[in-house]
Amino acid sequence: MADESLFEFLHMEIVSHIFNEQQSGKGEMDNKDRAACISLLEAMGFRVGQGLIERLTRDTPTFKDELDIMKFICKDFWTKVFRRQVDNLRTNHQGTYVLQDNKFALLTQFSAGKQYLDQAPKYLAFSCGVVRGALSNLGLESVVTAEVSVMPSCKCRWNTNT
Amino acid sequence: MADESLFEFLHMEIVSHIFNEQQSGKGEMDNKDRAACISLLEAMGFRVGQGLIERLTRDTPTFKDELDIMKFICKDFWTKVFRRQVDNLRTNHQGTYVLQDNKFALLTQFSAGKQYLDQAPKYLAFSCGVVRGALSNLGLESVVTAEVSVMPSCKCRWNTNT
Repeated sequence: MADESLFEFLHMEIVSHIFNEQQSGKGEMDNKDRAACISLLEAMGFRVGQGLIERLTRDTPTFKDELDIMKFICKDFWTKVFRRQVDNLRTNHQGTYVLQDNKFALLTQFSAGKQYLDQAPKYLAFSCGVVRGALSNLGLESVVTAEVSVMPSCKCRWNTNT
Repeated sequence: MADESLFEFLHMEIVSHIFNEQQSGKGEMDNKDRAACISLLEAMGFRVGQGLIERLTRDTPTFKDELDIMKFICKDFWTKVFRRQVDNLRTNHQGTYVLQDNKFALLTQFSAGKQYLDQAPKYLAFSCGVVRGALSNLGLESVVTAEVSVMPSCKCRWNTNT
């Protein structure tokens, strides 16, 4: 329990540190500033994802194909990293995957509902990076995005046709 | 396993982010810059420690005295947060406590030995903050320091006579 909280608390500190430091000295942040923060968090996640997948696949036999990789990411990786089984997974069989987690670990601190939806992107950037980093280390370049329509549910979408 | 790594990887990212951003634009960091980074990491740890202890003591009966608190910090708290039992604990019964962990979680990524000793303070500041934050929320103001004489062993020392 404390392990999870340790990560979650540290993650919240990072998000607020990065946004505060970007804002310091300026009155308001514009979209460009916000994008710079999101991209910094995503890059951190990317490196963390690379590290994690190396550990997690150490004793795994080679993957047969892309679908095999996706099964691993959505089952083993997601469960171990975000501590929940995904609630839904869809693919168009052309490189787009949409994974739904109805109680996403990094959003459970928020009030459920739509009140803080505008804050969600800050708290999803790191996780998008983690998924992109993991896929990248398995040889798949991708674009990963996440969207929330009601907290704490999250849809993570990625495309490997980049 | 991934949980732990997730925290450890994120922690390493934070440390390098904070040091890099302090250094950017300057050639070399001086002691003042380094102290500013350490203090930033310590402050993050402080807030994380405050959050963690609130969760961990939710179902714990009130503590009788300072020694009771210390037992909790060194047994339950340390074990849950850093995932190891402490190897040694000493006190002078006048407010100074020295806790030894011979395989400290945030130092296991380093080569064992003395090669990277000069890097240790960067990677201990956050944890010192965590302990100080936890003690502070239990009503004990303290000064917490950590020292390493050989990796990955760590001595964490705190004093409540501040």
